Order: sequence, then structure tokens, then C-alpha cells
Amino acid sequence: MSQDFSFTILARDGNARSGVIRTAHGEIRTPAFMPVGTAGTVKAMTPQSVRASGADIILGNTYHLMLRPGAERVARLGGLHRFMQWPGPILTDSGGYQVMSLAALRRIDEDGVTFQSHLDGARHRLTPERSIEIQHLLDATITMAFDECTPFPATEEEAANSMRLSMRWAERCRAAFAGERGYGLFGIVQGGVYAPLRHESVEALKRIGFDGYAVGGLAVGEGQDTMFEVLDFTVPHLPEDRPRYLMGVGRPLDIVGAVERGIDMFDCVMPTRSGRTGQAFTWRGPINIRNARHAEDPRPIDPQCPCPVCRDFSRAYLHHLVKSGEILGAMLMTQHNLHHYQAVMSGLRAAIREGQLREFAEAARAREAEGDIAPV
Amino acid sequence: MSQDFSFTILARDGNARSGVIRTAHGEIRTPAFMPVGTAGTVKAMTPQSVRASGADIILGNTYHLMLRPGAERVARLGGLHRFMQWPGPILTDSGGYQVMSLAALRRIDEDGVTFQSHLDGARHRLTPERSIEIQHLLDATITMAFDECTPFPATEEEAANSMRLSMRWAERCRAAFAGERGYGLFGIVQGGVYAPLRHESVEALKRIGFDGYAVGGLAVGEGQDTMFEVLDFTVPHLPEDRPRYLMGVGRPLDIVGAVERGIDMFDCVMPTRSGRTGQAFTWRGPINIRNARHAEDPRPIDPQCPCPVCRDFSRAYLHHLVKSGEILGAMLMTQHNLHHYQAVMSGLRAAIREGQLREFAEAARAREAEGDIAPV
Repeated sequence: MSQDFSFTILARDGNARSGVIRTAHGEIRTPAFMPVGTAGTVKAMTPQSVRASGADIILGNTYHLMLRPGAERVARLGGLHRFMQWPGPILTDSGGYQVMSLAALRRIDEDGVTFQSHLDGARHRLTPERSIEIQHLLDATITMAFDECTPFPATEEEAANSMRLSMRWAERCRAAFAGERGYGLFGIVQGGVYAPLRHESVEALKRIGFDGYAVGGLAVGEGQDTMFEVLDFTVPHLPEDRPRYLMGVGRPLDIVGAVERGIDMFDCVMPTRSGRTGQAFTWRGPINIRNARHAEDPRPIDPQCPCPVCRDFSRAYLHHLVKSGEILGAMLMTQHNLHHYQAVMSGLRAAIREGQLREFAEAARAREAEGDIAPV
Repeated sequence: MSQDFSFTILARDGNARSGVIRTAHGEIRTPAFMPVGTAGTVKAMTPQSVRASGADIILGNTYHLMLRPGAERVARLGGLHRFMQWPGPILTDSGGYQVMSLAALRRIDEDGVTFQSHLDGARHRLTPERSIEIQHLLDATITMAFDECTPFPATEEEAANSMRLSMRWAERCRAAFAGERGYGLFGIVQGGVYAPLRHESVEALKRIGFDGYAVGGLAVGEGQDTMFEVLDFTVPHLPEDRPRYLMGVGRPLDIVGAVERGIDMFDCVMPTRSGRTGQAFTWRGPINIRNARHAEDPRPIDPQCPCPVCRDFSRAYLHHLVKSGEILGAMLMTQHNLHHYQAVMSGLRAAIREGQLREFAEAARAREAEGDIAPV
């Protein structure tokens, strides 16, 4: 028996909510952080270790998967869940953002985007209909509407034109989405840093009707203050009863602040990408494990962290691995970071349930301000 | 209570033996394959997954570890077992082979070798005494005598001079080795492809007396026939009651043939290094997962393999990961290969116990000759 796609809010604290999204592939506890599994793998992690970190859902990138191995191939192999052995929910982005940031010779017209693959230069075309089709072939649990990610900075006129194109595409996405039971389609609010445009975008999406609402076009260089400001004037207009997803965010304290403003879902490459380059996230802020101060430190990354990496391995060992370019360094740093991110989410959910979100958030900010533990 | 270093032969079949080496860090079932953990990590594997593959012992490289992170640093951090979280036995090589193959500006004299690090060009010196000291600082369960790996090809005179230098060094290694309880020191037979030199080397080592005897200077390009020929005229002269270790070997059928000739221990980078470049070992021979024939093959690497990789993942997925340069590709290919190698060792041990080694070996050779399963 398949499960309807639904969102149930179980607790509120201020503007924040904690709940559960039910899907064809299982439940997602919110606030939720989605590790990024760009090319059919959360880099340097097995699916089992992703699950063990506490993740309920991962993100896949339409742009990467359409180029390699190809959406039709993934479909012939049984869909992305089966292909990568992640049976849980998967959200796929629409490809719009990556086309703008990675592809070459991109050209936008009213109907869609033509671009060249960054892998082999081959020409491809994405339209709202093709993006939805690809996400269907991938068997995405949550499909994202195809939009143009408005560049930052943009004038109000540029942001308006871009947002209105995305809203016309959102309508075509809704029409193209098959809507199987337990699967959801999310719209994406655009409008840059301009409140009237964000409001216009929210209204356009609400008229079309989506299973969830994402806030796009942020985490593109505008800074935390501006991002929070945009959330302050945007989130209150979003439907109360649907999940709200802040795309591409962020550092732990960005997430804490966004949850305080009513956001339910997040994704970011930071824990995985930074892990591969030697940055570890802790309750006392990020540390660079390559720093010589860690070379003989027998303590774990974070003495308070219960993750398998902090249980078993020293900073000294991780320093050695990362400095030596060893794959195990990328594996362990990524694993710790994903555990830390999920610990933040779990802490946020518990705090909301207990009406302690303000205390939790203030403690998190204070601990990060303290900085790393002193050298041994 | 510490355990004496001992070797007990539990079964024989022809020239082959199966037994157990008892050490301060646990037991090693023989014939044993030692995954190579060059720089304090079996590349792309956690220690738990190395253990789960069936490995009792791993190998560490003195040359790499002395340069980074440094033997004294490893000692201050509690030794290599603790540093890398591998509590089981560790054999360290002496550094001699890597100095010859990796270092720059190496200069041999009677006392030792001076060379420049391949990492930063710094000058270093290795002598028999310093090699033993480094291996002691690393807390090696099995220490290897410092030798000169005779180049191939070498004239009989070159091989004789090189071997006799190694024998003088072997005596100095024996004198320098502290010999704590449960720790062992192995000598290395040299002499190239020349039977009289191999015999002279064996006699020299037996006079000194070691806890185990390695056959060195093979797997350097001489080919399987010559390697087996050298084993045929060398192994019968080695002490019956001590473990025999064939260094740097090899492919699965090399190992099978060497076990038939009385070898007990092996190490080789092949399952790990080849795994990272896309070669998978199977009972039907190696396959290159990058080959387009695997791109849509939903079957595992080896349908008969019970390893976690073959249980969960398709050739198509591994093909995608390896072609995409994904770390998970290196992780899964390495994991399968190490499981396969340990399955070969486990099969050899069982066959010897049951007096079926000839049948096992002939079946292994026949299956490999059949080649890979047909495409879907």
C-alpha cells in the first residue's frame, strides 16, 4: 500500500516547526538536512553510512545524472534508489542551478535552456517538461520545479524578469508532473532580495499549488544577514501546512537561524565538500584539520561528538590522512561532518518539541563563538 | 599475559601447509594475505572493513611512515596499531625496497643507504639499525630485516654482491632487534634467479636464526614461470617450522601456485591499487569495470561472491562510479577485491585441511581460463 505524500506538523516553537513528511519511500523528520549525492553517490560515503549518520533523505543532481550515466539508463536500471542502493526518499533538483553554474555556452529562451556539457562539450537542452521527465526517470521522491536561479547581484528589473520566467516554467512543471502516489512536486520562490518580487513569486506558486515550497536564489553570496532578511519577509507568506525548503544552505548556524524563521528542509555541499578538503564542523565551529596544531593531538575532532570517527580516530591521524591525500581522510572527515549536521538537526527537532529552541540556538551560537578547544 | 611468537602447522597437503602464527597482537591464519596499508591506511578502507574482509594482518611501509608522519611521532601517539586503529598484527617492511623504487639520489654503502625523500627532497639515511629502530617505534608485530632488493635483471655477480651485503645487514638487524615477547623478526632470502645464491642466502639466514623467512627480489618482472622456478629450488631449503613469506606477490593464481610450493604469507598492492583504477578480481579472472560492456549490467562483479559489494551493487553502478572518478568507486572496488583475495586464502586453507589442494588449484586455474561471464 503506497503512502500519500503528506506533511504533519508535530510541534511548534515560535516560527519554527518540527514534523514529518510521509512519502512513497519513507518518512522524513523535519527540520531535515539532505546530504548532497550529486552523481548518484554522497561522495566518499556508502549509503549505509549516510543512513547511519541520521539522514532520512538525500539530494541528487539532475544536471549531473542526465549527463552521466543518463536518466534513461538510470530508469532502465530500476531508478536512482535501486541504482545507488538508497531505498529512502530522494529529492532531485531541477538542473537549472547547475546549468547556470557548471555548463558552458548556455542560452536561455522562453521555452528552456540550451547548454554544453562540462564533461564532453555535447549540446543538451533542458525545458520544464524535460526536467520533470528526467526527475521522473530518476524516480525522484520529491521533484523540483525547473527554474532560473536569479544571479546575485541583480537589479530589481533583472530579478523580476527572471522570477516571472521561473513562474511561467513552474506552471508548465505542474502540468508535466505525473503525481504518482507518495511523490511530491515543490515550487521554488525567486525574486532576489526584493520583498515585492518574493511576495509576487509566492502568490504565483500558491495559485499553481505545490506539495512544498522552496526558497531559491539564496546562499549565492548575499551574506547571512541578507539571507535572514529575505526569509523574514518571505516565509510568513508561504502556506503553513506545506514543507518549506531553503535551497543550498548552509553552515550550521545558517540552518539554526533559518529554522527559527520557519524553514523545514535544507541541503548543502558544505559538510561533504569541506570534509574532502580537511574542514571539520564541531559545536565550537569549523576547524581545519590540516593545521599543524593538530599533528600530535590525540583527541578526536570533537570530544562531545558520539560519531564513529570521533569514537575511534584522533585529530593527529586525520591530520596525517588529509595531509597525505589519503582517501580514508576524505571518508572519515565527510562521515564526521554528516554526523555533526544530523546532530544539529536532531538537536533542533528536540528543542522545538520541548519549546527550547531559543535556548538551543543561543547556546549553539555561544559555543561556536568560543572557538576550538585549546591545543594539548 | 603476552603470547610467545609461534607458528603451528595444523595441516599439510603436498608441499603446502596451513597453520596459525600466534603474536602479541593476535593470531594469523596461514596461508595469509596481508593487505598493504602503506601510509597508515589500507587505501580507501576503514580498519573495520579490512577486518570484515577476513584479513588477520596488514602490512605497513617503513619508508612512507618514516617520512610522514615520522616514526617518532607515531611512537608518541602510541604506535601504529593505536594510530590507525588496527589492533591486530602488523608487519612492516624494512624500507629497503621503497628506497630503491621511490626515493631520489639514493647511494648505498656498506653501512646503509642515503636518499632523498620523494615528498620534499629532504635527505634521510637508513641503516639496518635505524630500520629496526623505526619498526620498533611503529610497534611492528613482525619486523623485516633491512635488505637491498636486488634489481632484475642482474648478473650472477651483481646478484651475489647484493645478496651478501643483505646477509651482512641481516646479521646487524638480528643484533639490533629487541625481541619483545610476541614480536617476530623475519630474514629475507635474496640471490636473484640463481639457485646457488639462493641456497647460500638461506644458509646465511638460518645460521643467524629468524622467526620467519621471506623470499625477496621476486615479482619484479621475472614472470610467473621464473618465480615458481625460484620457489621450487629455494623453499625446500627453508626451515620447516617457520613461516615463509613471499614478498610482493601477487595475482590470485600466483598465490595459489606459491602456496602449492610451500609459501605461508603474501602481500601485494594489486587488490587495492587495481581496485582504485577499476580492475576487479573474480574467480573467473580480472575484469575492467570501466569497459562499456558493464555500463548497463545489473549483475554484481561476481555473482558467486558473498561480499557486501556484490550483495548490494551492480556492475552498472560501479562502472558509473569509476568512470566518474567517484571516491565511492575506489572504496567499493577495493572492498570487493580484498574480500576476493581473502576468499582465495580461505579456500586455500580449507583445501589444505581437507587434502584437496590440487583439486582446488586446478579448479581455480580452470575457472580463470573460462573468462568473465557473458554480457547480459
